Parts: sequence; structure tokens; C-alpha cells
Amino acid sequence: MSDAVLHPAVGPLAFLLGRWRGEGKGEYPTIEPFVYGEQIEFSHNGRPFLIYGQTTWNPTDGYPLHSEAGYVRPVAEGRIELVLAQPSGITEILAGTLSSTRINLTSTLVGVSPTAKQVSAVKRVLSVDGTTLSYQLDMAAVGQDMNIHLQAELEKQ
Amino acid sequence: MSDAVLHPAVGPLAFLLGRWRGEGKGEYPTIEPFVYGEQIEFSHNGRPFLIYGQTTWNPTDGYPLHSEAGYVRPVAEGRIELVLAQPSGITEILAGTLSSTRINLTSTLVGVSPTAKQVSAVKRVLSVDGTTLSYQLDMAAVGQDMNIHLQAELEKQ
Repeated sequence: MSDAVLHPAVGPLAFLLGRWRGEGKGEYPTIEPFVYGEQIEFSHNGRPFLIYGQTTWNPTDGYPLHSEAGYVRPVAEGRIELVLAQPSGITEILAGTLSSTRINLTSTLVGVSPTAKQVSAVKRVLSVDGTTLSYQLDMAAVGQDMNIHLQAELEKQ
Repeated sequence: MSDAVLHPAVGPLAFLLGRWRGEGKGEYPTIEPFVYGEQIEFSHNGRPFLIYGQTTWNPTDGYPLHSEAGYVRPVAEGRIELVLAQPSGITEILAGTLSSTRINLTSTLVGVSPTAKQVSAVKRVLSVDGTTLSYQLDMAAVGQDMNIHLQAELEKQ
């Protein structure tokens, strides 16, 4: 459905559409810092949401690391929601604001499967400036307070 | 990563891999019955989970209806979890059993975004027999008890 007409409700999110690729760095009080390669793709099928897919890999050997998949939902002017699932057994529901090309989201619910690591809250800030998409993800997990976890800069492909 | 070697942990789920396509029918106490076209794809990237993607469409005009994306996690012998997100603002975490080519899952958590419809529980039964994948989805939603919602038969492509 790449030839679908963009739904007017997602017009303000059109700046996200396409494939973005680059590198990020991760840290958390409980782990050693690390770097990763990353690709994010936002697409649409003509309905009033964007389709979100993300994968990361070890920059040394290309082996896949994290991934997540979900949907971006415009729910009112300047207000959006993001829902996603992760193979680590975690789901996130976030809500927040869209201002120009900047998105600021806070989790309303983080779901963890019976065998997943404990994650209690997530904040995601994402912005696009020219051909660069930057984001920062903070989380409260495994008994820690909200701390920075991920930061990346990706270039439009 | 379609050339990745299948992780041994997902060997028992290999019967799901590939693309499945067919038709389904939906019903619920609060809605008119409906039919839909559907495609499901299970893939992998060498890590110990399967990647799950699903789309449905109106069989008359091909317009996209539902979709969902997530991951299948083998967590112990005969035990699996499924985590997924839906553009309707819903996330599901399900856990249950794998027995031969039959999967029986019950939600441990259904997440709903601030603007989503209320869904409180979901059951999913899926089985493969030869080249046919069949599933049934029951749900408790919008104040109703657990009731059948979806049933479909898809053929391996």
C-alpha cells in the first residue's frame, strides 16, 4: 500500500515518513555503556496512523540486538500516542505532544510479560531537523529511577 | 536477515514461518458480523523469537482494516509468550502453551491507550494443519464477557 494516499490526520506526522539509519549509544546505571547501529522506518497504509518499525545491531559484527514494532496515533491537534511491542516481552503505551517536528512522549502503561525484565516507565523525545532524526529514551527499570538509556542520531535514507 | 540461521530456541515454532493468506469472519455482541481478507507473516532474524506481522482488509475494496505487529517468544519447553501492538491503541501480552503445531494463549495484560476502546482480556488459539493456518480469537471488551470475535483460515503462500 505504498501508493496509498496519506490520511489527513497524519499529515502533521509526514516528516517522520521514510527510512532513517545511523548509530546510537546506550547506558544505564546497571550496565556497561554500549553503541549500536540502528534503522527506523515510518510508513503508512492510508489509515490514520503511522506504522513504526525499528531494529538495532552490533556495529562490530552486524548481529541484531533490539527491535520494536508499533504504531503512531494522532489523537488530537498536537497530541499523539505511540504503542509498540518488543521481543524482550515488553509493550509500551505512550502519550504526549507533537510540536512542529518534535515529539515528547511519556508512558501511560508499560506491560511486561511473565518472564520479562521489569520496566516501569519510559520517556521518549524524538525530533527531526533537516535530514537528521534524533531521539533520547529514558526509563525507570529494574529498581532504578528514571535515567537516560538511549540516544541516537539517524540520517534520512 | 532472511539468510540468518534459525535460533534453536525457535525450532519448535518453525512451522509458523512464512506468509499465510486467506479470509476470516468477525462477530461480537455489539457489532454486525463482517468478513475480511487477511495476511499473516512470521519471520526471524536469528535471535530467539519470531517476528509477527498481520494485516486485514475489506474483501470488497481492499481497503486496510486491522493490523498488528509483535513477537513470539519461546520461554520454556512447550511454553510461549506473544506480545503485540495494534494501531487501535491496544497492546496485548499473552502467555500459554505450544503443543505440536497448536498454540493456546491467554492474555496476562491488555494495555489500552488513553483514547482506545476498552478491552480487558483476549484468548488466541492458533493451529497449523498441513498448509492451513487456523485461528480463533475471543475477547472480553466494551463491558461484554469473553466472546468469540474472530475466526480465520489462511493458506501458506
